[in-house]
Amino acid sequence: MTIYADNAATTKLSDTALQAMLPLMQEHYGNPSSLHHIGQKAKEYVEDCRERIAACINASPGEIYFTSGGSEADNQAIQTAAALGAKKNKKHIISSKFEHHAVLHTLEQLEKQGYEITLLDVYKEGVVRVEDVAAAIREDTALVTIMTANNEIGTLQPIEEIGKLCKEKGVLFHTDAVQAVGHIPVDVKAMNCDLLSVSAHKFHGPKGVGFLYCKKGTALQSLIHGGAQERNKRAGTEYTYGIAGMTAALEEAVTNLDKNAAYVSSLRDIIIDGVADIEKSFVNGDLAHRLPGTVNMCFEGIEGESLLLLLDQNGICASSGSACTSGSLDPSHVLLALGVPVAIAHGSLRISLSEYNTKEEAEFIVKAIHQVVPYLRSISPVWERIQKGEVIE
Amino acid sequence: MTIYADNAATTKLSDTALQAMLPLMQEHYGNPSSLHHIGQKAKEYVEDCRERIAACINASPGEIYFTSGGSEADNQAIQTAAALGAKKNKKHIISSKFEHHAVLHTLEQLEKQGYEITLLDVYKEGVVRVEDVAAAIREDTALVTIMTANNEIGTLQPIEEIGKLCKEKGVLFHTDAVQAVGHIPVDVKAMNCDLLSVSAHKFHGPKGVGFLYCKKGTALQSLIHGGAQERNKRAGTEYTYGIAGMTAALEEAVTNLDKNAAYVSSLRDIIIDGVADIEKSFVNGDLAHRLPGTVNMCFEGIEGESLLLLLDQNGICASSGSACTSGSLDPSHVLLALGVPVAIAHGSLRISLSEYNTKEEAEFIVKAIHQVVPYLRSISPVWERIQKGEVIE
Repeated sequence: MTIYADNAATTKLSDTALQAMLPLMQEHYGNPSSLHHIGQKAKEYVEDCRERIAACINASPGEIYFTSGGSEADNQAIQTAAALGAKKNKKHIISSKFEHHAVLHTLEQLEKQGYEITLLDVYKEGVVRVEDVAAAIREDTALVTIMTANNEIGTLQPIEEIGKLCKEKGVLFHTDAVQAVGHIPVDVKAMNCDLLSVSAHKFHGPKGVGFLYCKKGTALQSLIHGGAQERNKRAGTEYTYGIAGMTAALEEAVTNLDKNAAYVSSLRDIIIDGVADIEKSFVNGDLAHRLPGTVNMCFEGIEGESLLLLLDQNGICASSGSACTSGSLDPSHVLLALGVPVAIAHGSLRISLSEYNTKEEAEFIVKAIHQVVPYLRSISPVWERIQKGEVIE
Repeated sequence: MTIYADNAATTKLSDTALQAMLPLMQEHYGNPSSLHHIGQKAKEYVEDCRERIAACINASPGEIYFTSGGSEADNQAIQTAAALGAKKNKKHIISSKFEHHAVLHTLEQLEKQGYEITLLDVYKEGVVRVEDVAAAIREDTALVTIMTANNEIGTLQPIEEIGKLCKEKGVLFHTDAVQAVGHIPVDVKAMNCDLLSVSAHKFHGPKGVGFLYCKKGTALQSLIHGGAQERNKRAGTEYTYGIAGMTAALEEAVTNLDKNAAYVSSLRDIIIDGVADIEKSFVNGDLAHRLPGTVNMCFEGIEGESLLLLLDQNGICASSGSACTSGSLDPSHVLLALGVPVAIAHGSLRISLSEYNTKEEAEFIVKAIHQVVPYLRSISPVWERIQKGEVIE
């Protein structure tokens, strides 16, 4: 038996998405830039997808730029805002301490180029405070970039309020909505955002594709130079079937959004409630404002990696945090930003569910955690010290 | 009936490639960065592909970096060389006048940043001369970037000699091999290149994926910052099925290289020979050193776009040049670089064949050109003037 509970890392491709991809893989294989009928057919597909995707987030088709995924979209969005800012001598950017590395590492590059970066606190709740954004905005602020939902702990950010504030102050606002789109309502107008990044494989769409929403009037800068694709803003032959699969998956997700959110959050709560009786354990981040499917917990006195491996032996696929940084021995920057001590941050577990999971699976996960955590603690010298009342840092 | 003769723009996905993709689309959908078994299975696939791709071009697996395609690979390669050069105060780059726009437009960006770009002549033959490269190399030359095969006219460049020269002079050498890989032998060691760009959809692999070969010891710079994928050099969850499809397609192409090249070039020659009797027409570029499948011809006195449309009505999918610049009214920069006058460059036709084409199709194309060109000339005021002996510029 396999229980896939790592949907924040990636999701299973939906059959709807696969079926949307196959005609373009097998028959309509043209290059959308070609003038002949095979090319034009491919172009029709791409432009139809652009319209349908725009409709899913309350944007116009001309505001959608297809990319190779969320990371590329984040890079392009931030570099665009940085370049536009520089023209007005504005080289200050505001973000938060627990953004995805696609944001943080892009900002680090900009820092090397002379930009000044302010990373806001996210507090114990894992939520950026609007008043902190307001206080950080300066005359020379080029961009505020705050994620819609955190990828490791699932907390939702006050995006609409931050967007409104940025609009009032005339500062560009970008949000990495990679974990949010397809899972919670996303309306670019309500969010007041200028730039928004999306990745298809987080909502049962294909890998290798995403898009960047760029509000009309914001002069998007190219990250990949070359051919005239995407109105000259993203070179490279379009990944037509990826675009088609993403569109089908997004429409499916948006159509079933309320139903899925209610169902998935009920499974998530089975897990939260089910492990609440384990001593010296806690859920990371605000309990009220979170994605339907994601929960991140810390169990003191154990190593997250061992926990993962034993769960995996029980057929449960979970994560200790972001898949993008696995292999690294550093504790999660997200949990550290929440103020979780290093030693405890090492004992984290992220369970991220989808509508493909069942109640029985959620209950099995609870049962498995109840077996594995005490076992790991029984062989942990750290747990022994914790029980003696020592504070482990 | 449809005859697809635009394989330089994109190719039909081979069944071998599709079959290699489906298991990863349907079953092994994990994120290669995840530690659980579903993730590790995906990782095994990716690393197996890396080995197999490396073997196809005589590289080591650690020298292969997966990208979203040829354009991204070109951008990353050139920006890498530019950044490495800048550290040594070397800000001169040598390229040619008829590179793909993914190269030329990236160089234009660097020019704005203070780099000096030398674009070499390609002469009537459409071939860069090694002695020109030698003469252009300076103390401050950071990079030579010359394509392996031109995408519009199919001429092959003296890559091995240029590579040897660059090695002797201690200058980095990049080649855009997008049109070459899978069609002619490509051996990175024989080519003496440091960086080489590849796109899968040009050899019956999937769209949205390619790779960059970066020789061990060359410090590749990230274009997309974020997660630690691709040894920290290319962020973003791996497009696992694209990588698998590319690998299968490349192996298939390399295995059948000689057979396909002989067959496809025989079809190409049916076309070249078959239209040779049309007055005021000529093949662009050197006839001896060219890709098996690509031929580009000019027919004086007609508009290439009208030619394409009428061929398309006859079921023939062809191109006037690069698909990436279609929609532009400018004549091909490649043909202008060859010294073709503007008026004649507008009357160009690129036929690019693959092993999926047949002798009957090649003969049909010849027949169709024989019908369409005289018809278009019969309604062309320009052709009337040409017949009177006027020189049209």
